[in-house]
Amino acid sequence: MRVMENTYALIMAGGVGARFWPKSRKSLPKQYLTLVGKETLIQAVSRRLQVIIPVDRIYVVSTKNQIPLIHAQMPWLPPSQLVIEPFGKNTAPCIGLAALHLIRHDPEAVMMVLPSDHLITDTEKFAQILREAVDLVKGNPEALATIGIEPTYPATGYGYIQRGAALDLPSGKAFRVRAFAEKPTHEVAEQFFSTGEFLWNSGIFIWRAATILHLIEDLMPDLAAGLREIDQAIGTPKEAEITERVYKQIHSDSIDYGIMEHASNVMVLEGNFGWSDVGSWQEVYKISPHDENGNILVNDPIVKECRNCYIEAGGRVVAVIGAEDLIVVDTPDALLICKQDQSQEVKWVVEKLKHSSQQKVL
Amino acid sequence: MRVMENTYALIMAGGVGARFWPKSRKSLPKQYLTLVGKETLIQAVSRRLQVIIPVDRIYVVSTKNQIPLIHAQMPWLPPSQLVIEPFGKNTAPCIGLAALHLIRHDPEAVMMVLPSDHLITDTEKFAQILREAVDLVKGNPEALATIGIEPTYPATGYGYIQRGAALDLPSGKAFRVRAFAEKPTHEVAEQFFSTGEFLWNSGIFIWRAATILHLIEDLMPDLAAGLREIDQAIGTPKEAEITERVYKQIHSDSIDYGIMEHASNVMVLEGNFGWSDVGSWQEVYKISPHDENGNILVNDPIVKECRNCYIEAGGRVVAVIGAEDLIVVDTPDALLICKQDQSQEVKWVVEKLKHSSQQKVL
Repeated sequence: MRVMENTYALIMAGGVGARFWPKSRKSLPKQYLTLVGKETLIQAVSRRLQVIIPVDRIYVVSTKNQIPLIHAQMPWLPPSQLVIEPFGKNTAPCIGLAALHLIRHDPEAVMMVLPSDHLITDTEKFAQILREAVDLVKGNPEALATIGIEPTYPATGYGYIQRGAALDLPSGKAFRVRAFAEKPTHEVAEQFFSTGEFLWNSGIFIWRAATILHLIEDLMPDLAAGLREIDQAIGTPKEAEITERVYKQIHSDSIDYGIMEHASNVMVLEGNFGWSDVGSWQEVYKISPHDENGNILVNDPIVKECRNCYIEAGGRVVAVIGAEDLIVVDTPDALLICKQDQSQEVKWVVEKLKHSSQQKVL
Repeated sequence: MRVMENTYALIMAGGVGARFWPKSRKSLPKQYLTLVGKETLIQAVSRRLQVIIPVDRIYVVSTKNQIPLIHAQMPWLPPSQLVIEPFGKNTAPCIGLAALHLIRHDPEAVMMVLPSDHLITDTEKFAQILREAVDLVKGNPEALATIGIEPTYPATGYGYIQRGAALDLPSGKAFRVRAFAEKPTHEVAEQFFSTGEFLWNSGIFIWRAATILHLIEDLMPDLAAGLREIDQAIGTPKEAEITERVYKQIHSDSIDYGIMEHASNVMVLEGNFGWSDVGSWQEVYKISPHDENGNILVNDPIVKECRNCYIEAGGRVVAVIGAEDLIVVDTPDALLICKQDQSQEVKWVVEKLKHSSQQKVL
């Protein structure tokens, strides 16, 4: 292992997410689920990071209610590496708060900021690109680096990053960023895709903690004021109370919207390491290994003449005959049956349940 | 109500049946299920019979283990109208045993023998044909009458009755029987269907109790000997013990095979009263009223963009999106998902479970 000095990972784990109901619940968000392979998504993120840095430099930021899940799934994580938000306010406050903690621990800290619920299959390539990004930021202390994913189709579900001039880096795949774009319409996505200039925004960022805090001062003065207030309370008996009061006041903003779209010194490194945001049951089906009938069978369902199905039993007997292109997810109190190409409609079910007498299954 | 003197119904309720798993179980056979409408199948049979005869002439024959179900579903049935077999030995012993009891009660008894798990939609026509059959048997005391169903397609799942010379009866739809045929191959079924001479065997029989007992003496001497032994024990403290001993020795034979195929004085009345043997989940789907999308939704599943589905929730939340031609039956400990046209494969699931560690869901 090549240990990178002053380099830390920040896994953002506060998200909720309705797209994996009935397996995901309000009390059990996506990142804590085993959707592909044998680890939960957050455990896999942590394992990949351990190729780059030792575990004592892996931090997790999450909301108070998820602390028990984090301790259960990452028992090695000491409280000093867990940054707790009272509740979620999107990525800008989350990253700002974590940067405060990191810079107290190490004024030269370089942060690799990563979502907790994405999947990456080529860990070696992933490590190589992150190392390159860290080197880039160390040599160019005011830079913000981000990882862009080479698009394979004109997706409308991701933000895009338009690349500009190439940088002289070993990979040959680093560029200045010309622009960030929010999730496009299908028409715009087609244009982006055809130019070859646009990358998917992976939500992975690399920068010095000091740099992002300076930029928050410049570009998000309200958040900066809140963070200063929290900073003065850290380590005092009033830390939790003040953090909560500040969080109630600050806006819910993404780091993309608050900083990246307005900052001038932004670089993108092109990632090609088998990335997926695991955005739906259909995506889980696509990225998991299938049997000879194209099926993925979890917890031994009884199956006959099924093709291209994802079937996950819970504790009960599940028998499926003659199904094609179907998602079946059985849990002790709720069952989902969904055609593969309509798996985004799970959100519709969740919305419907929110306004029903059956909210207990959310 | 036109009360028919000396006329009794015998509902045969001993059957088990694996085709409605997971709703049917070893301990809850098909006839005790609500599959269509709001009554169980046996309750519907009883209700239809009450158009013809008073309830004190409706008898049920079943096996010991089903007594609690019968009392629960037919609370009006006195013990004197419940004939109990120690276990099932097909229809010949069952009918013979019931005939013994009936003839003790009324030596002139005419029995209408009916399966407990079939569905009939036109109760009036059904009553009319049964009355005609009873009149036929009363006027021709040695006759065996049976009800044949006009085939609507060349089914391979039913036995057939070939009709012969027409009888001079009010309906104009009564015939001498030329032959009985077991369930045919598809080729033979096509031939039967094309001749127009063959009717489906409904398993409904009408005869004098004395007549069927005489024919058992002639054609099934071993069964007759057993029945004589039981007859001597009826009303004594040894009745149950002797019945059980006899049942252990006698063959398991159907009345069709043991009597009907060999008897000479057999008549068939053609029934056209919306008959179904409710043989599979697909059949339940076909004979039940659908909503505007062709769906049948039981116990409020959450459904989006589904067509031609039968979806029955149990106690849990069930959400189904984008399914077509699917059977979904959810119960507290087992779930079935099955393509409509493969619903006969439910038997395969039951066989598989028999040889698994999950027999408790059978």
